[in-house]
Amino acid sequence: MASPAELAAMRRAIELSRNGASTTPPNPDVGCVILDATGATVGEGWHERPGRPHAEVNALNQAGERARGGTAVVTLEPCDHTGRTGPCTQALIAAGVARVVVSVADPNPVASGGAATLRAHGVDVELGVLADEAASANARWLIPFRTHRPFVVWKFAATLDGRSAAGDGTSRWITGKEARADVHRLRAAVDTVIVGSGTVRADDPQLTARLDGVPAGVGGLTGVEAATGDRTVDQPLRVVVDSAGATPATARVRDDQAPTWIATAEEVGATPDGRVDLTKLLNQLYERGRRYALLEGGPTLAGAFWRAGLIDRVVGYVAPALLGAGPAALADAGVNTIDAAIRLDVTDVRMVGADLRITATPREHRKA
Amino acid sequence: MASPAELAAMRRAIELSRNGASTTPPNPDVGCVILDATGATVGEGWHERPGRPHAEVNALNQAGERARGGTAVVTLEPCDHTGRTGPCTQALIAAGVARVVVSVADPNPVASGGAATLRAHGVDVELGVLADEAASANARWLIPFRTHRPFVVWKFAATLDGRSAAGDGTSRWITGKEARADVHRLRAAVDTVIVGSGTVRADDPQLTARLDGVPAGVGGLTGVEAATGDRTVDQPLRVVVDSAGATPATARVRDDQAPTWIATAEEVGATPDGRVDLTKLLNQLYERGRRYALLEGGPTLAGAFWRAGLIDRVVGYVAPALLGAGPAALADAGVNTIDAAIRLDVTDVRMVGADLRITATPREHRKA
Repeated sequence: MASPAELAAMRRAIELSRNGASTTPPNPDVGCVILDATGATVGEGWHERPGRPHAEVNALNQAGERARGGTAVVTLEPCDHTGRTGPCTQALIAAGVARVVVSVADPNPVASGGAATLRAHGVDVELGVLADEAASANARWLIPFRTHRPFVVWKFAATLDGRSAAGDGTSRWITGKEARADVHRLRAAVDTVIVGSGTVRADDPQLTARLDGVPAGVGGLTGVEAATGDRTVDQPLRVVVDSAGATPATARVRDDQAPTWIATAEEVGATPDGRVDLTKLLNQLYERGRRYALLEGGPTLAGAFWRAGLIDRVVGYVAPALLGAGPAALADAGVNTIDAAIRLDVTDVRMVGADLRITATPREHRKA
Repeated sequence: MASPAELAAMRRAIELSRNGASTTPPNPDVGCVILDATGATVGEGWHERPGRPHAEVNALNQAGERARGGTAVVTLEPCDHTGRTGPCTQALIAAGVARVVVSVADPNPVASGGAATLRAHGVDVELGVLADEAASANARWLIPFRTHRPFVVWKFAATLDGRSAAGDGTSRWITGKEARADVHRLRAAVDTVIVGSGTVRADDPQLTARLDGVPAGVGGLTGVEAATGDRTVDQPLRVVVDSAGATPATARVRDDQAPTWIATAEEVGATPDGRVDLTKLLNQLYERGRRYALLEGGPTLAGAFWRAGLIDRVVGYVAPALLGAGPAALADAGVNTIDAAIRLDVTDVRMVGADLRITATPREHRKA
């Protein structure tokens, strides 16, 4: 049984884990709190980004000698392997921690086994504390292990009356520059950006992540850091869902600024009506090492993703503007009556410049 | 010149004035701060509802003898007439206040003249301090004086993808019970509810304000209070915009629970295309003593109000749900291209149950 102090520490650790959300991918979001032998908090840490110390090490460094005989409370089972950093199990043992309270067991076969190693060294280990809450906070990293597809974020921009373009088709700019910069941060965090060929033909987007002051680089899953210590932008793989292979040879999405995959029904596999089979597409992306995808643009493609149950999170940028005409952000989601509406839970609402950013999770996916 | 302490007090008074927003109609939202002779705050007050003391009296009561020789900072020129309460000018003079700092002059011919009376009694009066901010906070009460029409709030409910009903027309319930209760509070605050005849034929709404635990009554502008001291709900006038007089005789909106006006083009005046002239409608409502209207239901009617520039505030209830089909909350607003979008300023965002409530003001109407 976790003590009240340990439960409070786990809630705090979950909160700390969120600090890394935009920089940790492809690594998990992890938070850690160290309690001394009396139950007082003596260290806090979270994992900031690939190549930097894990949450446990950051928290242990803060605690120093006060960790000895104390308890480490951590949102994910400590890793037991040497990657770019050493195993956290060894750091915890070396620090003399007497007990480790863990929320979620590590589903990663490469890194798991941490609990067993700790126990073999005489450390008391408790697993599963506030596991639902911790799994929800780390869903972006956990869901791919279970589903064998990337975690999918559907991003849309619309006016308060739900239009993603005006009656004449113009849509630049519905949202302000702060919201557009926020989308670039989102693109820099994911490893894959998905659009429909209709959006490519209509808007000819480049779909790269452009962050002011951050040098661009072609990365992928490797999390390369520049020699200066500043992070380069790992450009996401650009995927065009293009059932018939109709993406123009001159499309900007085919430029050399980032890798691109024109995913045709012939290559991926087709649904009975001849469209790209989206579940197969995502499974193939997973096999190519992709774990975190941003679905951008195209109400019809978004509808097809919803019909296939492939969306894990919604990020909507809602501009305080009204149009009264023009296409909606979502079409053909397979819902015909109000009782069948796709219900979401709002997890975050904030102003981004003059626009609202609403983050929500489909009810059936709330728990990872 | 207002001193820094007086400016800070005026900001606080504006903040206090907002406390009454849902209960003061048809009276103005007013806040007051009393500073003693050294500039320290010794009293705060706001006007709570019709028949109760004005902001100045509440603040003076709190200050007591410490008001003598001090300054009253108030968001609206103190009234000079005896209504249901005595004139605030007399209360300020009797309390021995040496100076009165006012933001907005009273445009109400019945109650104005307060500044002149105070000056005639040797009180130093300064007008126009933070007038824009105070006017914005009190726009609901000030705009009708200038426009000779009621202040119009457009309320809509929609899903995150902007649908006000599903593809099959069902819309009960898009939002949750907390949001629906919030709409009833809004109806209880206004004196007029406006719908289109299409909404009446489609949904047959009753359009009364139903508040749990509050006795219903047919009121209007009078602000009647029950003998218990609890407020009755002053039922708003129900206005059906019905160009051709097609509202069924059996419609619930015609019941005896509240007054009703079936406003036809013949009675009100017609636009060139034979529709009810909405500007004339609102002017006639003003002549009938109506000052605060809630526009509910009907994307087409809402579009006509926007085209005529008759909307002062937007209250949108956005359900965290997706439909992908069905009508939008707004149609035919006279906007065809993105540069012509109706731009709003968000003034408040909050969760009401599981739904989002977004309050916004059209840019050109921000100042009263």
